[in-house]
Amino acid sequence: MIPYADYTPLTFHDAARRFTDGNDSPRAYLERCLETIAEREPVVKALTALNETGARAAADASAARWKAGKPLSPIDGMPVGIKDLLETKDMPTEMGCAAMKGNFPKRDNAAVWALRQAGALILAKTVTAELGGSQPGPTTNPFDPRRTPGGSSSGSAAAVGANMMPAAIGTQVGGSIIRPAAYCGNFALKPTQGGINRGERLATSQSTHGPHAGCLEDMWQVAIEIAKRCGGDRGAIGLMGPDTLPAAIKPNRLIVLQTEGWADLDPASKAGFAQLLSRLEAAGVTLIHRTDHPFVEALEKAIANGRAICNGVTSWENRWYQRGILDNAPDGISTRGQATLKRAEAMTPDDYRAGLLARQQAQLAHAAVAQLADAAITLSCPGPAPLWPGDVAGQPLAPRPTGDFVFNAPSSMLFAPVVTVPLISVGGLPVGVQLMGQQHEDARITGLARWFSENLQRVAASA
Amino acid sequence: MIPYADYTPLTFHDAARRFTDGNDSPRAYLERCLETIAEREPVVKALTALNETGARAAADASAARWKAGKPLSPIDGMPVGIKDLLETKDMPTEMGCAAMKGNFPKRDNAAVWALRQAGALILAKTVTAELGGSQPGPTTNPFDPRRTPGGSSSGSAAAVGANMMPAAIGTQVGGSIIRPAAYCGNFALKPTQGGINRGERLATSQSTHGPHAGCLEDMWQVAIEIAKRCGGDRGAIGLMGPDTLPAAIKPNRLIVLQTEGWADLDPASKAGFAQLLSRLEAAGVTLIHRTDHPFVEALEKAIANGRAICNGVTSWENRWYQRGILDNAPDGISTRGQATLKRAEAMTPDDYRAGLLARQQAQLAHAAVAQLADAAITLSCPGPAPLWPGDVAGQPLAPRPTGDFVFNAPSSMLFAPVVTVPLISVGGLPVGVQLMGQQHEDARITGLARWFSENLQRVAASA
Repeated sequence: MIPYADYTPLTFHDAARRFTDGNDSPRAYLERCLETIAEREPVVKALTALNETGARAAADASAARWKAGKPLSPIDGMPVGIKDLLETKDMPTEMGCAAMKGNFPKRDNAAVWALRQAGALILAKTVTAELGGSQPGPTTNPFDPRRTPGGSSSGSAAAVGANMMPAAIGTQVGGSIIRPAAYCGNFALKPTQGGINRGERLATSQSTHGPHAGCLEDMWQVAIEIAKRCGGDRGAIGLMGPDTLPAAIKPNRLIVLQTEGWADLDPASKAGFAQLLSRLEAAGVTLIHRTDHPFVEALEKAIANGRAICNGVTSWENRWYQRGILDNAPDGISTRGQATLKRAEAMTPDDYRAGLLARQQAQLAHAAVAQLADAAITLSCPGPAPLWPGDVAGQPLAPRPTGDFVFNAPSSMLFAPVVTVPLISVGGLPVGVQLMGQQHEDARITGLARWFSENLQRVAASA
Repeated sequence: MIPYADYTPLTFHDAARRFTDGNDSPRAYLERCLETIAEREPVVKALTALNETGARAAADASAARWKAGKPLSPIDGMPVGIKDLLETKDMPTEMGCAAMKGNFPKRDNAAVWALRQAGALILAKTVTAELGGSQPGPTTNPFDPRRTPGGSSSGSAAAVGANMMPAAIGTQVGGSIIRPAAYCGNFALKPTQGGINRGERLATSQSTHGPHAGCLEDMWQVAIEIAKRCGGDRGAIGLMGPDTLPAAIKPNRLIVLQTEGWADLDPASKAGFAQLLSRLEAAGVTLIHRTDHPFVEALEKAIANGRAICNGVTSWENRWYQRGILDNAPDGISTRGQATLKRAEAMTPDDYRAGLLARQQAQLAHAAVAQLADAAITLSCPGPAPLWPGDVAGQPLAPRPTGDFVFNAPSSMLFAPVVTVPLISVGGLPVGVQLMGQQHEDARITGLARWFSENLQRVAASA
């Protein structure tokens, strides 16, 4: 374990420069990743499957392309992990779910296909909370094994945080990319709804694929290389933008969103966020709070019940799929997962429609603030990753073992792009800050995130 | 085979009235359907699976509910066929595709689940063209076995047209409900995009489930009973409307759409349609043609390339799914199906985005005509069902063996609800007329269709 204060993330874009001059190679890069995996995986437990043989063969093919000066893309040779909800033709897809044990459909999710077309090495499947919900897998936080890595993209976040690989694919319905990324010190992009082709993963209306990475360069490159090849979801224009990391954009004005998470936030995280905001003001950025404009207040109100809206909409959308699983395997879904299904099965179509209406109203309120500022800023998670000792037999189930998605529900229900930047540490543990843009502003908020990353020092707050 | 001139469709809503007084029962109704199936199926070949045992048990349970005066819904006891693209827990789901032979996931599509909740008998799976595309199955037209029943909902349309069952579920991406329904003398509803929960059938952005039936009462009842229980697609409000068939609405003004199909239409069908329009004018309905208003002309232009737009968008959306099938079973998809996949694999994300843009532009042109008229009217198919002698080895493949979707591409790409009404016969074969409303006007166009059905005599044109 490396203390977060001493942590340097693993990056790829800079190593790739040395692939042509013979000072490094995709195979050597991969072997270093495999060494880190051998060292860290016994405690971090981020992976459900590892394809060393396939990755080595792909790395050698990539090395030949770089040597010939003909890489397929800037991420040719990049070892990437894939959240175990997405199908991969060479590894099982078990979704953290007992009922899916041994599921191995031998086909690639559209985004996985695109990564292979770009030359990336599909190195591993990464642990997901059960079916993308809240029942945790075995993964631990790379900066403190007593803590959760967050979820449901637990393994993708932890594998990147532990430097096992430079990037991994996560998915977010409520908070499943940004929160674990923030708990594990990653950069990550949760794109505009529909931004990246989800392939077979279409059951839910506010879910997106997105990259976790050790730096913004790799994060953007993974996203754009996928979108260039397989586009967005069916019916969506999908992610478009520059071929490499967008130029840094200094914000003039930022909306500071509290969200429903602010009231219960710990004092150290509040202090850390306040300190970051002071630095922004010192740099000449105007901050706009909920008290400064009625549109911001209207947006805060529209997202104030975000968790309940997201839970209602998503659990309804998953109910037939999950009922089918459970009917075939009555013990195949955890008690926690079954409780969610039971709540969904008590809903009517009109309950669901009311959730959709609330979501559309919130999106209208978000569109209304577009002219007020360059983006919105908020925490990516409610303080550092909580301790997670596991469920205790006979005790009531903790409601949110992978942490609370209270800061993530807004961007998910708004279909808005967010980038999380690891700019705060609280008690020696990572806490992220997220920038949220209007729909389809993925490239622009990535440019803003770049300015943050290049111009602000990490704030250290004592717990 | 019954000549179309002598055809009386099978209905359920009227029989159901006799279930309470003991003059009929769901079991007796089912047995009559099974007799018709025994008689017609050897030639019509509409079914891929028949669950007589399950349907009989369900019919007996339904009979007890009717007797007790407690039916689950007005369609309690109705035998229904399910297009073999949708999963059913008690019958295989083989999708008309060699690679899917034996596929039996033992779970119910959301709409199938809803039908069972409403008490309907899931009697049979019905033949689909391969994967919902253009490679035909064995089904023949119930009014002339040398002709196609249309596709891809071939079996649903033919089973209803042959009176094997009063209703069946079809699906439409381009023209797969309305065209076969029209060729087989059905009433059918292709709902607003997202109107009925597609469950696991989410790969394509302009696909809907919809009911085929022998009368408007049953058509509407099936649709609304499903939507009441499982709503629309994820993210969509879904079909809403009255509990039973909407009241008849007499149109004041109707837009007459030619579509790109008009130029190649046979003279007899043109004459039949013209005769129907004359009767409308005689009844006091104002007809608005493309030459009467620039908005109608703009809409005609926006849909003039509808087939190519639909084909491009849909084949792109299916490509990863179909590639996954083909990689696992290299002979598992027909030559015709593989040619479609090959065209999709030559597309770029920007080609697809251009298709989406054209679709959105057409939707805007359609929204613009809302104030001009109550609905649009057009043929449901380019004349009667064509002869289909089958592919001939060594000869080039006929491009559209299940008929041309030229009159159906518009409503599909416009996400607009349409109802087809069997109001024309050409050379003794059925030809449908469709009414198209604005998005979410499903109940209203059903009311308009009811007025048509109750106030207009069928036009008979000689071929």
